Amino acid sequence: MRIKMVVEYDGTDFHGFQRQKGLRTVDQTLEEAILSLTGGSIKVIGSGRTDAGVHALGQVVAFDTQTTIPAERFAVALNSLLPRDVQVLTSEQAADGFHPRYDAISKTYRYVVYRSPAGYTLKRRYAYGYYRELDLSAIKAAVRRLEGEHDFRGFMASGSAVKNTVRTIRQLAVAENGPDLIFEVVANGFLYHMVRNLVGTLLEIGRGSLDVQSIDRIINSGDRRLAGPTVPACGLCLVKVDF
Amino acid sequence: MRIKMVVEYDGTDFHGFQRQKGLRTVDQTLEEAILSLTGGSIKVIGSGRTDAGVHALGQVVAFDTQTTIPAERFAVALNSLLPRDVQVLTSEQAADGFHPRYDAISKTYRYVVYRSPAGYTLKRRYAYGYYRELDLSAIKAAVRRLEGEHDFRGFMASGSAVKNTVRTIRQLAVAENGPDLIFEVVANGFLYHMVRNLVGTLLEIGRGSLDVQSIDRIINSGDRRLAGPTVPACGLCLVKVDF
Repeated sequence: MRIKMVVEYDGTDFHGFQRQKGLRTVDQTLEEAILSLTGGSIKVIGSGRTDAGVHALGQVVAFDTQTTIPAERFAVALNSLLPRDVQVLTSEQAADGFHPRYDAISKTYRYVVYRSPAGYTLKRRYAYGYYRELDLSAIKAAVRRLEGEHDFRGFMASGSAVKNTVRTIRQLAVAENGPDLIFEVVANGFLYHMVRNLVGTLLEIGRGSLDVQSIDRIINSGDRRLAGPTVPACGLCLVKVDF
Repeated sequence: MRIKMVVEYDGTDFHGFQRQKGLRTVDQTLEEAILSLTGGSIKVIGSGRTDAGVHALGQVVAFDTQTTIPAERFAVALNSLLPRDVQVLTSEQAADGFHPRYDAISKTYRYVVYRSPAGYTLKRRYAYGYYRELDLSAIKAAVRRLEGEHDFRGFMASGSAVKNTVRTIRQLAVAENGPDLIFEVVANGFLYHMVRNLVGTLLEIGRGSLDVQSIDRIINSGDRRLAGPTVPACGLCLVKVDF
């Protein structure tokens, strides 16, 4: 049977989601735990290959197993085997053809910017510390230009091989919570480093070194060099995958 | 000159504040950084000896130095030498007789309880995961019986040698923030494990295994065995010291 699980992890001490020889990855950590429960051969597929340092509150994974363990039991059984920085929230049986990446209709990522030096020591694993003055109204105006269907090639890491770079941002919300400035992006798909490049560009607009119209120029030209820097992985979290 | 600094740290990877041979402590980490800046001999004194795993947003420390470096420069100079889990917020010259423990008139500790299994992976270093149903009105009624001047011997770790166990809790606030249940205690002094034993007792009252009146019985009898368990260090943070 195919099992679908919702998984959360603290990405700080992982070299990303996807298996890499000799490195500690989420994928491999999950596979080893499942294997010690079921035996056989296990291949875990995720909804998104989060980079080193990126967190997840709602990563969705799937794998096939011949075990007689009920699907719902996997969450509790695996949590006792898994390290504390990756845990399974729910497990259930999925249709045989279910694929966490191809079947996803949208994903939600959150990026947290922490705007005060005080307290950052306790936030440093989960937020980007950024202490410049920000014009939030400029950021919000820029955000409105990003929502909708666009060619986001200019916000993709240079060197990516993806051909179709058109994506739809269904929602890009900006919220403040004390020193936290929180960006939440819902889209039908994401290009490599897209959220981190979007946030890096929005911060440049907020501090006034790019203007709001630069969003249109980046979208129209597809020129990565016009966009802002890639902000650090630690601020990013895969919140949710919808099917 | 004597220098006073406000320091924050993530207690997770420290064996507490106070120097212990062969273990990584906040005290020793600060002394080594200061030493590499000034030379000489350095003895750092803190406002409170936080236990292993306990955090600080506003620990106050002091030390004497013969250096010509201006006192205000120490914060920035030390932060470049310190590891990321301990940082100096401010540094200033203090009166020669200033003592961070004896001169403190009150301290504020915060304890965070996280009430949902979902998301705890990203909170586990800074909150105690507790998933039982809690009666908040019972907790708030118990809190009112704790405020004021009392003999808190029953909330002190057994085996402590302190003679005068009377302390004044100036304020004990309980607040909810989503899944966080936050206890903030301001007192003129704290006994060993006092906050963790208070919170452990309040959680027992919240889940109904102790009644609100048990607070009076613990205070009147001074019997540690009547109080709740000591909750984990990770939820505790020294927020502020007032002089």
